[in-house]
Amino acid sequence: MFNRRSLLAGSTLASLAAVSKAALAALPEPVIQTSPDTQPPLAPPNGRPYNPVVTLNGWTAPWRMNAGVKEFHLVAEPVVREMAPGFTARLWGYNGQSPGPTIEVVEGDRVRIYVTNRLPEPTSMHWHGQRLPNGMDGVSGLTQPAIPPGKTWVYEFVARRPGTFMYHPHADEMVQIAMGMMGLWITHPKAKHPHITDVDRDYAFLLNAYDIEPGSAAPKVMTMLDFNLWSWNSRVFPGIAPLVARQGDRVRIRIGNLTMTNHPIHLHGHEFEVTGTDGGAVPRSARWPEVTTDIGVGQMRQIELVADEEGDWALHCHKAHHTMNAMGHNVPTMLGVDAGDLEAKIRGLVPGYMAMGHTGMHEMAEMRMRGPDNTAPMMAGDGPFGPLAMGGMFSVLKVRRGLRRGDYADPGWFQQPAGTQAREVGDAPPAPQPPDGTMPSPGAVDVQVRKPLGHTGH
Amino acid sequence: MFNRRSLLAGSTLASLAAVSKAALAALPEPVIQTSPDTQPPLAPPNGRPYNPVVTLNGWTAPWRMNAGVKEFHLVAEPVVREMAPGFTARLWGYNGQSPGPTIEVVEGDRVRIYVTNRLPEPTSMHWHGQRLPNGMDGVSGLTQPAIPPGKTWVYEFVARRPGTFMYHPHADEMVQIAMGMMGLWITHPKAKHPHITDVDRDYAFLLNAYDIEPGSAAPKVMTMLDFNLWSWNSRVFPGIAPLVARQGDRVRIRIGNLTMTNHPIHLHGHEFEVTGTDGGAVPRSARWPEVTTDIGVGQMRQIELVADEEGDWALHCHKAHHTMNAMGHNVPTMLGVDAGDLEAKIRGLVPGYMAMGHTGMHEMAEMRMRGPDNTAPMMAGDGPFGPLAMGGMFSVLKVRRGLRRGDYADPGWFQQPAGTQAREVGDAPPAPQPPDGTMPSPGAVDVQVRKPLGHTGH
Amino acid sequence: MFNRRSLLAGSTLASLAAVSKAALAALPEPVIQTSPDTQPPLAPPNGRPYNPVVTLNGWTAPWRMNAGVKEFHLVAEPVVREMAPGFTARLWGYNGQSPGPTIEVVEGDRVRIYVTNRLPEPTSMHWHGQRLPNGMDGVSGLTQPAIPPGKTWVYEFVARRPGTFMYHPHADEMVQIAMGMMGLWITHPKAKHPHITDVDRDYAFLLNAYDIEPGSAAPKVMTMLDFNLWSWNSRVFPGIAPLVARQGDRVRIRIGNLTMTNHPIHLHGHEFEVTGTDGGAVPRSARWPEVTTDIGVGQMRQIELVADEEGDWALHCHKAHHTMNAMGHNVPTMLGVDAGDLEAKIRGLVPGYMAMGHTGMHEMAEMRMRGPDNTAPMMAGDGPFGPLAMGGMFSVLKVRRGLRRGDYADPGWFQQPAGTQAREVGDAPPAPQPPDGTMPSPGAVDVQVRKPLGHTGH
Repeated sequence: MFNRRSLLAGSTLASLAAVSKAALAALPEPVIQTSPDTQPPLAPPNGRPYNPVVTLNGWTAPWRMNAGVKEFHLVAEPVVREMAPGFTARLWGYNGQSPGPTIEVVEGDRVRIYVTNRLPEPTSMHWHGQRLPNGMDGVSGLTQPAIPPGKTWVYEFVARRPGTFMYHPHADEMVQIAMGMMGLWITHPKAKHPHITDVDRDYAFLLNAYDIEPGSAAPKVMTMLDFNLWSWNSRVFPGIAPLVARQGDRVRIRIGNLTMTNHPIHLHGHEFEVTGTDGGAVPRSARWPEVTTDIGVGQMRQIELVADEEGDWALHCHKAHHTMNAMGHNVPTMLGVDAGDLEAKIRGLVPGYMAMGHTGMHEMAEMRMRGPDNTAPMMAGDGPFGPLAMGGMFSVLKVRRGLRRGDYADPGWFQQPAGTQAREVGDAPPAPQPPDGTMPSPGAVDVQVRKPLGHTGH
Repeated sequence: MFNRRSLLAGSTLASLAAVSKAALAALPEPVIQTSPDTQPPLAPPNGRPYNPVVTLNGWTAPWRMNAGVKEFHLVAEPVVREMAPGFTARLWGYNGQSPGPTIEVVEGDRVRIYVTNRLPEPTSMHWHGQRLPNGMDGVSGLTQPAIPPGKTWVYEFVARRPGTFMYHPHADEMVQIAMGMMGLWITHPKAKHPHITDVDRDYAFLLNAYDIEPGSAAPKVMTMLDFNLWSWNSRVFPGIAPLVARQGDRVRIRIGNLTMTNHPIHLHGHEFEVTGTDGGAVPRSARWPEVTTDIGVGQMRQIELVADEEGDWALHCHKAHHTMNAMGHNVPTMLGVDAGDLEAKIRGLVPGYMAMGHTGMHEMAEMRMRGPDNTAPMMAGDGPFGPLAMGGMFSVLKVRRGLRRGDYADPGWFQQPAGTQAREVGDAPPAPQPPDGTMPSPGAVDVQVRKPLGHTGH
Repeated sequence: MFNRRSLLAGSTLASLAAVSKAALAALPEPVIQTSPDTQPPLAPPNGRPYNPVVTLNGWTAPWRMNAGVKEFHLVAEPVVREMAPGFTARLWGYNGQSPGPTIEVVEGDRVRIYVTNRLPEPTSMHWHGQRLPNGMDGVSGLTQPAIPPGKTWVYEFVARRPGTFMYHPHADEMVQIAMGMMGLWITHPKAKHPHITDVDRDYAFLLNAYDIEPGSAAPKVMTMLDFNLWSWNSRVFPGIAPLVARQGDRVRIRIGNLTMTNHPIHLHGHEFEVTGTDGGAVPRSARWPEVTTDIGVGQMRQIELVADEEGDWALHCHKAHHTMNAMGHNVPTMLGVDAGDLEAKIRGLVPGYMAMGHTGMHEMAEMRMRGPDNTAPMMAGDGPFGPLAMGGMFSVLKVRRGLRRGDYADPGWFQQPAGTQAREVGDAPPAPQPPDGTMPSPGAVDVQVRKPLGHTGH
């Protein structure tokens, strides 16, 4: 799933061939992306004015300098996104993928963005979090007319504040965001900033959600709460790339939420701080130590940590149903129930259905149960010690000794040093259990009471 | 929608005519409100001991001084609330409206509040966030018996802490809050406070939610999550008044959440800080810069900003379905589908139904599609550049040069200065699009790959 | 409900009788708990190296010292949990109850935990928030193989950071957490810490949620959002013990969230600060004053306050439907509706159904309406002044003068001092009300308009 080849070989930036002859001859080419793989960071020219971000399963848009202005070209259009191996969705996005490319500039840059609308309905572009002239804010009806299908508009403003931002439509936005229209915007600081620390690795992704029926490819766009695919940059585990760091690196992870609910992002094995929001850098005096940050809708959060613990550390949304894909959400409780011929009956209704869960859901992961064609498996992913049984908003921070700076390739699974792993010590003490493994009835939980153990020393 | 007349002409405070002759002769008159318009702030007498708040689409309760005690009278009763032009709800509230009047006092004031129950069931009044004697806390059963229908009770305590609070029942509160029973309480500081800054404009409103069937007027009261009207002070866009500020003003916006979910309140074009909660002033060292603050249920948040950017800046909940009203919530996905005669069939089930959304929902806003009588339109509101296509928790902060202090009247739409607005530059480059405007099948997205553009300078 | 006896008499720690003869002879006995009552804190031996926590409706696990290592034994198994008097659930937990026992150690302790799996499916144990070797992190598939049914595994690591943590499976976790598998972990600081304050009382509990049909005992395990029992330590009000404090005590309450949504925990009558998270102690400069803290999923929050106001102060989730139990969630709106024979029809579908709510839900609480056998009543609990009409995530902080240190017994209800309680002053002023008590039609709300009262002094 994760290997060096997929990261490095997938570098397939491409530009649209045909541009109209007349008015558009002067536009920068809209560089498109055909791969869902994480692309190498786009290093700035001339040394190192900033450390570029790595967009998880995404890429940074190249620009064209035009008389001192950085010019970009975003094309809003239907796209095909591989959300995970074997599962492809028909979304709306920018320049070939959803999310669109990351815009990456430096504080003080004058930026000009051409936006072409190839959708069947009007759109607009809102530059979330930016200081800009009111007429560049992209709220259709309020600050500008909507961009009609078939037209190209232009926005221009100075990137006044360093930080983590995003772009998305502000026209029919419930539909257009539900279809995948969004992208990241990073403004690097021009000079040293008292509350912005240099980091060694700088990752970025957006939280998004889709409601796609198993076996289908097009999202339902009026869903408010009951999404069945919770994704990072329109990818679900095991389709989400790992985050890689050298032991001791300072790592920044920039996360924005464009779903309909909070996502508590949890990292194993390390504490972190939120060092910035889309409103700016968080003063050091105001920071909290966290292992889980709850990201509200429409919020950007920069978290920073020192990756000082070697290993493979889970990074995921802590809402358990956001780490499982679509299949399981309508499955009835089977715990302790003899499914009998119910399985056959349900299979008549749901293709590929298997009775599952009568002793919990773990067996599902082992059976590699699959839904109809083009369905993200509910519990998927293989680890070094068996099935991970995850889906949705889940990835791994891989911390290794001695990686080269700028090496973002997947290092494979961590080799646990001898004596540092949990291990079996024997059988369970016998206890009253029905022989068939189902849950005992209340009366059967027949515990024997003895005197307390207490503690025997400190 | 927003104009000078509606703000200033609506000042229609009124008091109930009939009071009982005997025991109630001594009560302050319960001043009622018949208008849903924003009322002018209630300036304190004798100069300016504090800068009064403006309650969005609400008003501040007058009081009576009685031997050094500020006396108020709140009447819990069924009310009729215009939630937006053309859409009226039958709610429960106080003194003629939902929410009830804002209580506005000064730190150290002794306050006596008479509460009359004209509802068909018992109620009580909880003074959320206040320091007070336990017997004044208003939790029926725990700190007092419930107030029976037809009775008047009295609460009395000193407003010990400056800040932003609210009042609501603590008796059958899931029902009574779902019906609209709530109000704001502002306690101004008595003296300079190290973490409280004087502001030029001070707005306040509560977030609430209703579940009212299209064509109906009475909320369903057992709804837990699936509300279909997300409102500010029981108003939905375009019924919500704008917030007006002079360029350079320091503006405070006090927001409390009495719904069942978080609301991430997002402001365009400006950063802000949360300077206070219902627990008190946030120390300066602890504040975060934000453009979106996620307000939990039962929380009050004071946000403060300097309105230094001229323009019309959207202020809204960032959960996209909270900026759309009731109609659309059960609409099936039509993207890329030829609706055919489905439209006629559904119209038999849903009066006024029109097939929509087969190219997105934007067309709906343009068609001014309406539901049954007395329904808030799903996507509504006209801006200077076309339909805003919003509903629910959405308003606009209007920042203008040279407004007079204390002038809260709607200044109309912002005139974008020449050269500061996004503009059309030409047609889209041609790309493979099916002629009927529907979404291409995956195979049809036939992008041609060329070498990357790269960047050509920095 | 709450009395001295239930707290102190319930101290029924017990150990499993049978242990296997061979490999397990050396294991510490798995001490089990048969009572859902709050157990006295487990004071450390040899004076007072730390002030132990009180786990609400729970207990602290005894340990065994073995060559300088603190050894615990947790047994994952089906359990029977009384969630409230009269309502028992069949859950999965540890050592006889859900949640399992609190692990309570000191910073720097080396800890060895044996985990026995008596469930019908594999499990694992994740030590949420801890710094530890990657192989001890308990993510099945990623850091270790899952623990098969019938086996005992061992984890070992040093408790490096002081703070509030938890343990739960990281194998089929959506199912296993929905079944109740979780527990608290407290690491006391070894020495004075600049951001950790000594407290007089230290409470701890976990937020959890279940979806159990009225009349049933087994949770549905695939529920994502529509839980019907919102609990603290697998207890619902009135089954949740009160928190008791002496007036003037500094009180810490440690709360962790293992549900699927945020819970805004609200305390009456006092402000508090969040002083720590599972990431560590919050620096003093970064703390906010609050009366409601919104706890995200997978987050631990330590709140601290000085209990300086005597009385009975509600402590609850501010989402109103989280303070009501299962029954009411599918009840249609009856406000202003003459139920007629609908009641009899519904009773055919829902055993024990009574028409209710046509004048609000308050009457329900008074009628002590009950569901089928083994159902948590929707609105329950008696206070000193009548029904509390609550369920779910609700308890009371009882602040009293002159309690002895270490006395956690329920002091009974607060006696409101004379003159400090809200009181009736007379009848309501007459107003247009239909004689039958139903809500008037809009036309009937016939308010008479007079001139504003204004204020008459300041």
